[in-house]
This record gives sequence, C-alpha cells and structure tokens, in this order.
Amino acid sequence: MRLPTLKWAGDALELVDQTLLPSELVIKRCDSAEEVRDAIHRLVVRGAPAIGVAAAYGVLLAAHSAKNSSPEELREHVARAAELLAAARPTAVNLAWAVRRMEAAAQGQEASAQELYERLEREAKAIEEEDREANRRLGKFGAALLEDGATVLTHCNAGALATVDYGTALGVVYAAVEEGKNVSVYVDETRPLLQGARLTAWELTQAGIPATLICDDMAASVMSQGKVDCVVVGADRVAANGDAANKIGTLNLAILARHFLVPFYVAAPLSTVDFDMASGADIPIEERNPEEVTSFAGARFAPVGVDVYNPAFDVTPAYLIDAVIMEGGVAKPPLGAALAALRRD
Amino acid sequence: MRLPTLKWAGDALELVDQTLLPSELVIKRCDSAEEVRDAIHRLVVRGAPAIGVAAAYGVLLAAHSAKNSSPEELREHVARAAELLAAARPTAVNLAWAVRRMEAAAQGQEASAQELYERLEREAKAIEEEDREANRRLGKFGAALLEDGATVLTHCNAGALATVDYGTALGVVYAAVEEGKNVSVYVDETRPLLQGARLTAWELTQAGIPATLICDDMAASVMSQGKVDCVVVGADRVAANGDAANKIGTLNLAILARHFLVPFYVAAPLSTVDFDMASGADIPIEERNPEEVTSFAGARFAPVGVDVYNPAFDVTPAYLIDAVIMEGGVAKPPLGAALAALRRD
Repeated sequence: MRLPTLKWAGDALELVDQTLLPSELVIKRCDSAEEVRDAIHRLVVRGAPAIGVAAAYGVLLAAHSAKNSSPEELREHVARAAELLAAARPTAVNLAWAVRRMEAAAQGQEASAQELYERLEREAKAIEEEDREANRRLGKFGAALLEDGATVLTHCNAGALATVDYGTALGVVYAAVEEGKNVSVYVDETRPLLQGARLTAWELTQAGIPATLICDDMAASVMSQGKVDCVVVGADRVAANGDAANKIGTLNLAILARHFLVPFYVAAPLSTVDFDMASGADIPIEERNPEEVTSFAGARFAPVGVDVYNPAFDVTPAYLIDAVIMEGGVAKPPLGAALAALRRD
Repeated sequence: MRLPTLKWAGDALELVDQTLLPSELVIKRCDSAEEVRDAIHRLVVRGAPAIGVAAAYGVLLAAHSAKNSSPEELREHVARAAELLAAARPTAVNLAWAVRRMEAAAQGQEASAQELYERLEREAKAIEEEDREANRRLGKFGAALLEDGATVLTHCNAGALATVDYGTALGVVYAAVEEGKNVSVYVDETRPLLQGARLTAWELTQAGIPATLICDDMAASVMSQGKVDCVVVGADRVAANGDAANKIGTLNLAILARHFLVPFYVAAPLSTVDFDMASGADIPIEERNPEEVTSFAGARFAPVGVDVYNPAFDVTPAYLIDAVIMEGGVAKPPLGAALAALRRD
C-alpha cells in the first residue's frame, strides 16, 4: 500500500511528514497557505511534482479563507499566497508553474468569490490528477527502456513520495515490474538528508522490489563492477536545452555513468521543463543550512570552525543525458528539439 | 599541536581512539597483539601507514610477553601475532609489509630472546621513524605541485591521524603551507564513517588551514564551478602498474577530476606499493558491517529489509592518476615504470 503523499481534506491539506519517515508515520495538517509554505520549506513535502501540487492547494487554502468575501479580496489572497508559495524553494520550477496556473484560474471579472473558489478547487484537483496520470504514462514509456533483469541505480527519491502518487524515476521501475520484468535497484543514500536511504529504500521494500542501499561515494565502485544497467533519476527543473537540475549528486552520477557507458535517464513530467530558461546555467540553486551536513539527529560530528557548502541541487548538462522520459514520450538527443516537440504534441 | 596518533610506552601501545574524534579525545592502551588487532579492526587506529606501524608494535607486544623465555618461543609468539595482525584488515598492504619486516628481524639462530626482543624494538621504532620521515619528504615533493592560492579537494583522512605524524595527502598541504603558500581544502565528508568530516576537518581547523566540508555527492558541483585546482588523496595499496586502492569514493573523485580536467594526485609512501601485485584487479576489498550505512550513532534511518553493500575501498585505475607523490619523488605516467624506478633509487 502506498502512502498518500498529500490529500485535500476540503478545508486543509494533509501531508505525510517526510522528514520523519521511515521511523514515524505522521500526517501534517496544513490549514493555511503559510503552513503549506513552511511544510515545503522544511521538506515535510518534497519532490518537484509534489511541491507543485502542494503549492496549488496552498493557494486554494488562501482562497478558502476568502470565499465569503469579494472577488477582489479573494484574488488578493490568492496573489499573496502565490508569491509566498513560489518563493518557498527556488530550484523546482513546478512550484512557480502550479502557482501561475492557480492565479490564472482566479481571473474572470464576472465571477463571484464562491465561483472563483470553485474554479480554483477544480484547477488544484486537475493539477493533482494530471500529475497522477503523467507519472503513470511516463512510467510506461520508461519501462520500455528496462530489460527484464535490469539493475537500476537511482538517487534521492523520485518515487510516489515525490509526486502525488507512483513517482517519476521509481514510476519507471514500478511500471517495468507491473509488466512482469524483474528489476532491482541500487539506492544512493543521498546525503545530506538521506532521502534515498529513508524514502526510496522504504518505498521499494514496501513494494517488494529488491533494493540495495549504498553510500553516494560507492556508485563508481558499483558501476565499475558492471552491476548497473542504467541510472534513472528525477528532475527539479529542466532547461529548454535539456540541462537538468536535480538533487545534489546527480551530476556526479551522470559523469560516472558516461565514464562507464551506462545509460543515464531523467524521468520528469512536462511541468518540470522551464522553456523560458535557455540553459541550466541560469537555474537558481538553493543552498541550505550547514547543520544538515555537520550533524545527524541533533548530534554534531564535524568540528566547530569548519566551513560548510551545502547546495541542494546540481545541474547535469544535456550532453550527459541519454533520454528524458516524459508523459508524452521519450526525448532523446538533441534534447532541446525533442523537448520542444513533446511540448507541441 | 598535533595529536600523537600512536605512541610506544615500553610495554604497551597507546592509540588515540579515532572512532571518538573530534567530540572526545580518548587514549586507548593496548597491552597485547590481540588488543592491537582489535583496535585496527574497529578503526581505533586507521590509515594504511598508521596501521602498518601499529601492527609492528603489535608484534613487539607479542615478543614482549616472551622476552624471558627461549628464542624459539619468542619467535612462535611473533609468528602467531604476525598472522593475527596481518589479517586484521585485508586491503592496506602496509600491514603485511610491516609484519613481514618484524618477522625478519626475529630471525638469527645465535641470538637470545632478550637480544631478539631488542632487535624487534629497534625495527618497530625504525618503521615508525621511517614513516615520519617519508611523510615529511613526500610532503615537500607534493607541495611543489600546489600553486600559491590553490584549492585542494581531499577524501577520507590521509593526514597526521592516518600516519605516525604529518600525513600523506594532508602532508602535501601542510608542507605547502609551511612554504608560505595559501592553500584551502574542500573536505569530502566520506561516508559511511565520516573520516573527512570528523578527522580531516578537525586536523585542518586545528592547523588553521581554511577547510570547507562537503558531502561526497557535492564534489562534481564544486568542480563544475571551477573551485578545485587538484585532488589529493592517500592510498591503502598501490599495485605495480599504479592502480591504487583507497577509501571508497576515491574512484568517484578520480573520474570526476578527469571529466573536469582537474589533476588527480595520490600521496603515499613506498611501503604502500605492492610490487607483487601486477594490477589493482587483484587487490582484496574489505566489506564492512551494513550498520555503518543504515545507522548513525545507534539511530537507524534506513528501513528494515533493505540490502546494503558496504565496500570500504575502491580501486582507481592508473590511467586516471596524474601523479603518485612518494618520499623519493613524484611518479608520473607511465606509473608502472616510474614506481619501479623509485623503488630502485
């Protein structure tokens, strides 16, 4: 049974608190846009598609508190929440994309506040449902790239917990398994916050899919032994030319994969592509708290006085990516042209 | 002030317990070869040169307990301890090398047990002193490879704590700083046991050398930004052709360095070269307890049911190594010929 990453409860957004998994299963209830923003910022909910959907519901919560006031006031609430939520984390483009869709849905001069609220609710649910469907569809396209018996290496968590359901990179694995293929997965633990060890390993063991946990610095060793057939990761933002920002450490894997001639695939819905960004050089990279690196569970292990660099993402250049697996099909190099074609379809 | 990694106390070997640094400074006293073996196995003392010297003193402790018996009995004690200590960890060749030197020193039919013991004590002290000198000398050779203002990336701990004193990879940094150069260091935290975050960061901050801690999966990001001038690491065993076994994650760095055209240097004394091993393919790779990967400080974060692969070392092929910095000079490709020449000198 998969956890519901998020659930709209009519007047609140319920989130599985991913900071506590797998040791504790706690549902965090958010009653306001501010609470959703904080949940996104603290990684209670994370993963580019999931935070996009969460942000849409965050906007909806702002509208909910104004549905008995004037349309103008509701739109003001929506605009304030949109700004707040879009700034919760800088790298994933899905956040801005979902929030813009919600703002657009709140337009229409003739509508009452109640009508606008209903439109917004439909839009948020549509964003949620589209994510669910996109994952299923991209999973099927990606599964065709996996042979029976394949071993996949993945990084961070691009699974059900990073999306509404099913997942992107893990969606590819799930779809292949549903087709009857044997697939096993090497799971990079993904320092500093261990989303691989905590979330991906948990999802895969729950699903009965053979999973082997490794530290991030073991990937080259595993590849050098011929144990990896392909790397599949998610993305937080794909530039128009195919450069892909994803969890820190993805670039390491892409370079190692190319060295060992192991195919490197990015699995992401079209909502992750930022066609306004020509290349990955301009993607903003979030830097997070040094304590994520120096401590674990409150216990500090690094000496006082050492500097820390803690970027949450890196950018893999398009030339290291063998395919981007999307809900409309598989984009292959040259990625810029292939992504543009999938957008038009 | 540098910690004494190890100290011979006349009837015991005193070790800084490196499993507890930097939060606690505890001296572990070993009164027998068995205790030294356990200390090596548990990583109370670690680093190829340091465990070689510790093993020599472990043999000496076995001889100490037999110095009032017959020469034959003393030699039996030595042989048993040698076997025990050489098997404490499989990858570093310094262990076998030091133990063989001690066994050779215990030969000589005409000598009394007391005389043999004195020979063994001189030999152990010579191994210790040679390591001290080798590090100073290789540090100077390596320093010539660092420009003023250079930024070095290193992995694990190949510092004073990995040797009797000064260090190999960090010896290069210390020597450059002593020459008046400004050098700063990116420190890979080095999962799973965090020797970079705990030991290297501690040594460098103690020495007043600017150090920036990163997770292992951030190395590509840092290199892609042009922030790394060279990578310097130690080695646990270098094969005759120049292939080098070192802490897991070293191969990752070597591949990344080549991708970004960043020079990749191995710093190690001649005692680390195993001229009997033609290539790195035959170097035994120690696999350690899965709990090192699934838990931190007793708190488990990975789900039950996930498999773990935990190799302690990987092998970097010679073609990815731009130089091996040794006490006799800098070996450059072709490494096999260069190492053989340094051995003859």
